[in-house]
Amino acid sequence: MKFQFDISARDGCARSGRISTPRGEICTPAFMPVGTAATVKAMLPESVRATGADILLGNTYHLMLRPTAERIAALGGLHKFMNWDRPILTDSGGFQVMSLASLRKLTEEGVQFSSHIDGSKHVLTPERSMEIQKLLGSDIVMCFDECPALPADRTTIAASMELSMRWAQRSRDAFGDRPGHALFGIQQGGLEPDLRAASAEKLRAVGFDGYAIGGLAVGEGQAAMFGVLDYAPGQLPEDKPRYLMGVGKPDDIVGAVARGVDMFDCVLPSRSGRTGQGWTARGAVNLRNARHRDDPRPLEEGCDCPACRSYSRAYLHHVIKSDEIIGSMLLTWHNLAYYQSLMAGLRAAIAGGRLGAHIAAFHATRALGDIEPL
Amino acid sequence: MKFQFDISARDGCARSGRISTPRGEICTPAFMPVGTAATVKAMLPESVRATGADILLGNTYHLMLRPTAERIAALGGLHKFMNWDRPILTDSGGFQVMSLASLRKLTEEGVQFSSHIDGSKHVLTPERSMEIQKLLGSDIVMCFDECPALPADRTTIAASMELSMRWAQRSRDAFGDRPGHALFGIQQGGLEPDLRAASAEKLRAVGFDGYAIGGLAVGEGQAAMFGVLDYAPGQLPEDKPRYLMGVGKPDDIVGAVARGVDMFDCVLPSRSGRTGQGWTARGAVNLRNARHRDDPRPLEEGCDCPACRSYSRAYLHHVIKSDEIIGSMLLTWHNLAYYQSLMAGLRAAIAGGRLGAHIAAFHATRALGDIEPL
Repeated sequence: MKFQFDISARDGCARSGRISTPRGEICTPAFMPVGTAATVKAMLPESVRATGADILLGNTYHLMLRPTAERIAALGGLHKFMNWDRPILTDSGGFQVMSLASLRKLTEEGVQFSSHIDGSKHVLTPERSMEIQKLLGSDIVMCFDECPALPADRTTIAASMELSMRWAQRSRDAFGDRPGHALFGIQQGGLEPDLRAASAEKLRAVGFDGYAIGGLAVGEGQAAMFGVLDYAPGQLPEDKPRYLMGVGKPDDIVGAVARGVDMFDCVLPSRSGRTGQGWTARGAVNLRNARHRDDPRPLEEGCDCPACRSYSRAYLHHVIKSDEIIGSMLLTWHNLAYYQSLMAGLRAAIAGGRLGAHIAAFHATRALGDIEPL
Repeated sequence: MKFQFDISARDGCARSGRISTPRGEICTPAFMPVGTAATVKAMLPESVRATGADILLGNTYHLMLRPTAERIAALGGLHKFMNWDRPILTDSGGFQVMSLASLRKLTEEGVQFSSHIDGSKHVLTPERSMEIQKLLGSDIVMCFDECPALPADRTTIAASMELSMRWAQRSRDAFGDRPGHALFGIQQGGLEPDLRAASAEKLRAVGFDGYAIGGLAVGEGQAAMFGVLDYAPGQLPEDKPRYLMGVGKPDDIVGAVARGVDMFDCVLPSRSGRTGQGWTARGAVNLRNARHRDDPRPLEEGCDCPACRSYSRAYLHHVIKSDEIIGSMLLTWHNLAYYQSLMAGLRAAIAGGRLGAHIAAFHATRALGDIEPL
């Protein structure tokens, strides 16, 4: 079976459709929960699936260090290792080498670095990243790229983009022909329209199964990000999935979908679930706040996740304040379920040709703020 | 519906049967997972039930401090609060005041102490303990007792036992008549047969729905504990459940069941699940050990818990070494499932009149040690 992307509906720049892979379909626009170290933290994979997730993201950087890609391959691949038989997208390791590793040395060849876990020395190149992602058994493989820290001057961003484009070609060459597996290119170019255009042109010349918009959500702010998204998706092929890496908050996702993005990943719903923050249609709720301690109401009325179906805000407040693991389990579950319902709502609105009204209602509901205190 | 205990089979001193309560039946011999702060750590209650648990234990000391018994009562009681609709046994708070609180002052009236959480001052008396356990909605209420730290001289143990027996009468008086709810007395007397006999006599004179054997599993060692269990159960009423508090390791439980004990609780399976220790028929397995890191085999062959059904030892090793929450979730689930299967095996052996052979096989299997390294 081939990797394939079919757009079934459009509304303005937004599209809804599905990605078909041998491991299952991915309804788009899609949100991918992050399973950094072969687990979506505080969740069993069957629970992640129950929230509606079609695909997970795994992190090459973390997995290559521990337990190592070779070990996972010997154990039958990442899907079997972590008990998730649906599609997995792996990043290239490039971004996290820059954000987590120490003693980095960047050359034309690749990046040398020391592990943040034990200081051991490693090298990542486009070829090694492709090899690792193949060992993991990733369904959607990302090109190895370099993402400069912002703010950076135009010369730096241009040079970095050019390097990433040479690495994109090397990634494509190293990936080879793997039916049923996809390779995505990553557009760079910072906040510069002409650099973004040049990057897109080079990627199109190489040819990929999908295209990520990289180098955003790194501190530039939503207005600047939306500024890039006003033109960047249109620079990429119309008939391939577009993936905005590392995004984001619900309103980031809504704005990006309206601008033509099909795929997202972010640690936010799972990470904030471990710190007592619940995401609802009416915004973020800090369950550590004492106003919840006597509140018999669910976190979100009408949500059918286990946290909302079976527990009060008072209980969630209690277990979070008590540092009980069930607090992380329940809030992560709710947050992932909220994100998936957000995506399902966007897909239905696009299919129904009513995305504008849907987004207006999304913002109006958020403007209400959390339910009134008791 | 009344609280009722029916013995359906005997084998030597051992008994199997069931406790009936308005919230459900408890097959005995029973193991009660500990849900200290209104959660069995790292488990959803439906998962605890799936392991085969008929009843949970809640800790009065923890719950009275946070979120408070009054708050839980206002929210509909502990069952509703923590989403567990089957029976709950609560301890009296006495033991944990002694082991966790600071600035304790013991008088005939009760115990003053400071919270280990925030230093706030509290008082526990037999009457207040009964009130708290009623507010929680406990199905099986424990008398408020004093448990002296061992080693202690005979005079100290005798005085402590006498005090606990006066408190047992006050607990009985304060408990009143609550159909469908049970009150258990607690035998004390350390390792002294005559003090144990005196304690049992006083408890029988008051009259309880069940009888705990207290003051054991506090560092005296298995041989000394079994020494007491050789006579203590026989000092208690034959037709009421006998509960050995805070016990224990699998071989402790097996030895106590053979000596006529019907109920157990212990944090061991859940606590050790959070530190990478798995309990199996072949003994304890430390999954942090590097020998597991390439091992594709399940923790325990033939176990149908999620950890054994869907994951390798290599995966469990990886997530435990990586401090991932799923490691605690999976190992706690396995350990609670193992404990429940241990109890089910004992019940079946008693019912079949083959407990001796069953225990011999239990020890023979443990003597094999863990499976051979790869």
